[in-house]
Amino acid sequence: MINFSYGDDSPIAAFATTPGKSALTLIRCSGKGSLELTASIFSSPEKITRTAGNTVVHGWIVTPNSDKPHERVDDALVSVFRAPKSYTGEDSLDISCHGGSAAGQAVMAALRTAGFRDALPGEFTFRAFMNGKLDLTRAESVMELVCARTDRGRSNAINRLSGVLEKEINAIKNTLVEILSGAEIFLDYSDDEISADAEEIAGRLPNEKLAWEALTRLQKLAKSWQLELIYQEGILAVIAGRPNSGKSSLFNLLLKEERSIVTEVPGTTRDWIEAWVSIEGIPIRLVDTAGLRDSSDRVEKIGVERSRDLLETADLVLYLIDGEVGITDEDTALIDKLVMPHLVIWNKADIVPAPKELLAISAKTCEGIEKLTAAIKVEIAANAKNYDMTPSLGTVRQKNLVDAAINALNEALNLAEKDEPLDLVSPMLREAVNSLGEITGEVSTSDILEEMFSKFCVGK
Amino acid sequence: MINFSYGDDSPIAAFATTPGKSALTLIRCSGKGSLELTASIFSSPEKITRTAGNTVVHGWIVTPNSDKPHERVDDALVSVFRAPKSYTGEDSLDISCHGGSAAGQAVMAALRTAGFRDALPGEFTFRAFMNGKLDLTRAESVMELVCARTDRGRSNAINRLSGVLEKEINAIKNTLVEILSGAEIFLDYSDDEISADAEEIAGRLPNEKLAWEALTRLQKLAKSWQLELIYQEGILAVIAGRPNSGKSSLFNLLLKEERSIVTEVPGTTRDWIEAWVSIEGIPIRLVDTAGLRDSSDRVEKIGVERSRDLLETADLVLYLIDGEVGITDEDTALIDKLVMPHLVIWNKADIVPAPKELLAISAKTCEGIEKLTAAIKVEIAANAKNYDMTPSLGTVRQKNLVDAAINALNEALNLAEKDEPLDLVSPMLREAVNSLGEITGEVSTSDILEEMFSKFCVGK
Repeated sequence: MINFSYGDDSPIAAFATTPGKSALTLIRCSGKGSLELTASIFSSPEKITRTAGNTVVHGWIVTPNSDKPHERVDDALVSVFRAPKSYTGEDSLDISCHGGSAAGQAVMAALRTAGFRDALPGEFTFRAFMNGKLDLTRAESVMELVCARTDRGRSNAINRLSGVLEKEINAIKNTLVEILSGAEIFLDYSDDEISADAEEIAGRLPNEKLAWEALTRLQKLAKSWQLELIYQEGILAVIAGRPNSGKSSLFNLLLKEERSIVTEVPGTTRDWIEAWVSIEGIPIRLVDTAGLRDSSDRVEKIGVERSRDLLETADLVLYLIDGEVGITDEDTALIDKLVMPHLVIWNKADIVPAPKELLAISAKTCEGIEKLTAAIKVEIAANAKNYDMTPSLGTVRQKNLVDAAINALNEALNLAEKDEPLDLVSPMLREAVNSLGEITGEVSTSDILEEMFSKFCVGK
Repeated sequence: MINFSYGDDSPIAAFATTPGKSALTLIRCSGKGSLELTASIFSSPEKITRTAGNTVVHGWIVTPNSDKPHERVDDALVSVFRAPKSYTGEDSLDISCHGGSAAGQAVMAALRTAGFRDALPGEFTFRAFMNGKLDLTRAESVMELVCARTDRGRSNAINRLSGVLEKEINAIKNTLVEILSGAEIFLDYSDDEISADAEEIAGRLPNEKLAWEALTRLQKLAKSWQLELIYQEGILAVIAGRPNSGKSSLFNLLLKEERSIVTEVPGTTRDWIEAWVSIEGIPIRLVDTAGLRDSSDRVEKIGVERSRDLLETADLVLYLIDGEVGITDEDTALIDKLVMPHLVIWNKADIVPAPKELLAISAKTCEGIEKLTAAIKVEIAANAKNYDMTPSLGTVRQKNLVDAAINALNEALNLAEKDEPLDLVSPMLREAVNSLGEITGEVSTSDILEEMFSKFCVGK
């Protein structure tokens, strides 16, 4: 067992839901003595201490017993879990109290006085990992789920939580271990013991074909990260165009709600406004920029500069033409500068019809909007289609380790092809196996684990 | 049973926690068939249908069975409650799934396909009331708890949730019912039956002393509302003063965080910025206003106008003097106009010492801040002290009904004092009893209930 700043089993508590004007607030507790501590601030202590695991009891959370008599803090449902049948594998409780900020805060205060400490980020899932409840790929998928912006992102994370990635990694690793143990049998023989038969294959890797197959599987996994990253991080789509071309109206239309202020005064959008929309399951960070024009207003000027910076980092630009004005020289100059994928869109088609070659919309009458989203889909989904996503990688950490395994395996295969001796090939294979073991957490160091779990949210 | 747009027992579901980047999301389900419907989208249906009430089961929420095979939606803990042992009194479930927006939305979608409809605001608590789980004062306290901004607000609401108010209302009501039934015995005698003894007291109310006591108790309750309103709604405290007097610095200091932008350029705060702080358990809506000066900047001008409007509605004004400049004629003129409670505060006392009669602070060095909060306490707590808050009223509805009961009881006592016949006094008493019955929901109409519960949040 590694020595950890996270790694004790002391009783911890944390909010598991976002505070807000909601019906309920959920507080999670786990660790040694957590049942007894919670019982000490519960109206009927024995309900908690005597009940079986996976049971819900109802009562009052009360102030801890000090010189003053107990006072009622909140009415609560307490779900009791007994080790090892819990998320963390420890004795633990979920306290469902009233929503709003005051009730939850008061219950947390009572828990602290009773002897709980505030949980560190990811500490519940960390304990689940340490107690063998989850491997690292599943632990990471928990956080991916919480951060998922679209249904497709959720479904990919769920696959990993189900163990699809863990299974694939273990399968590849077992293949390599098999090859490795085959190779190490040869290594165990001293020179004089090697028979003529054995010598013949000494420079070759046993089961080389399996090693090549493993490499292909790893490369497929590495490739899955490219698309997964798009599903997780989304793409940046910037709406650009001259002032008053209807950028904010289009933004609102794509959002299906009134988010940015729409007026007829040019320069209304001083800063940029952004929102997430989902097209084909891919999260799109949609940005409505300040009109691109030279302005004398200092604040607006900053807005225009920021718009230009944003344009440079965009994955997709929706360039809007003011149909009433037509394509100006300024438009042509700006469009020519766009090196990234972009769509040129003729707005106000309800007033002035568009030239045939251009996408025509009217942000006012909604005309052509479906054609536009279809065109956006084609642009962003170009990379995404025809790709089987299961199993796929979920984090940069996993991607780096898969890359390390690929490099080591490649090196091993190269050496083997050059008929280098097995005692040079074998360490490379072992490196690949170790990298794969690190993905699932079979091999791990305290630094890596701490770094990983500290990125989680508190209460998870 | 009244016929309701709310009033069926069909299966309903709703988010009970605020969506956000949290560890968990809680979804509440209740109603006829809710166990079977949830089981139909659960990886081990019989775990839900065969379990005892108050049990937590673990499994996967899956997509409903249609032409496609089940797909995993999310990993979830499901708490199963069986009628009548549940919040609503119906069969119900709490589904604890992953946080973030995607997982919860996907589970809600699965529930809808399974046959649940979205719950109306307050529908769970409405059902709890209809099934006799809570009287109206307790049902209302649930919402008061969610909205509580300070610990004192929470503790008052908890008292009502415990039934303290219900008990007091019922006690007063029972006293009046007793008096009423005494009076109605007399009314039952026809004239010729009345003996000389009875005639002597015919014009008097039996147990008049008890009626006066009931009146006092009702008046005490009515008075409690004044303070409760302050605890619930808080007071508006506005920071005012000439430009650059240090208003934003004081605002930030009272907030103990950097909220408004502090610069040395006069006119930085164009609009007002507000935040809630708690002093002595009373929520204070603290507002940092634009400097009060004549400005040529149009946007700033609007800010100054708004500041003036806000000043007029303030419960307390913190008027800041720029110590470096001293008290100007403009300051004196503005302070003279303040008709509401206000504190005149000398800022920048670290640079220029304050005249003795003024509160001296330095928003920069924090000097004098404790004295200031103490002075604020004195101003706002003037009404609050020496008042026993238990039991207290929690809603305007309750206050109006208590007022109605007071008026009716007053009228009855007046009539009795004038020796009016009991058949005139008695209906007044009955009116008081009915008003009290309406507070707890013993007497109620569908309009009132619908109006009341529709103000709740969804999921409650």
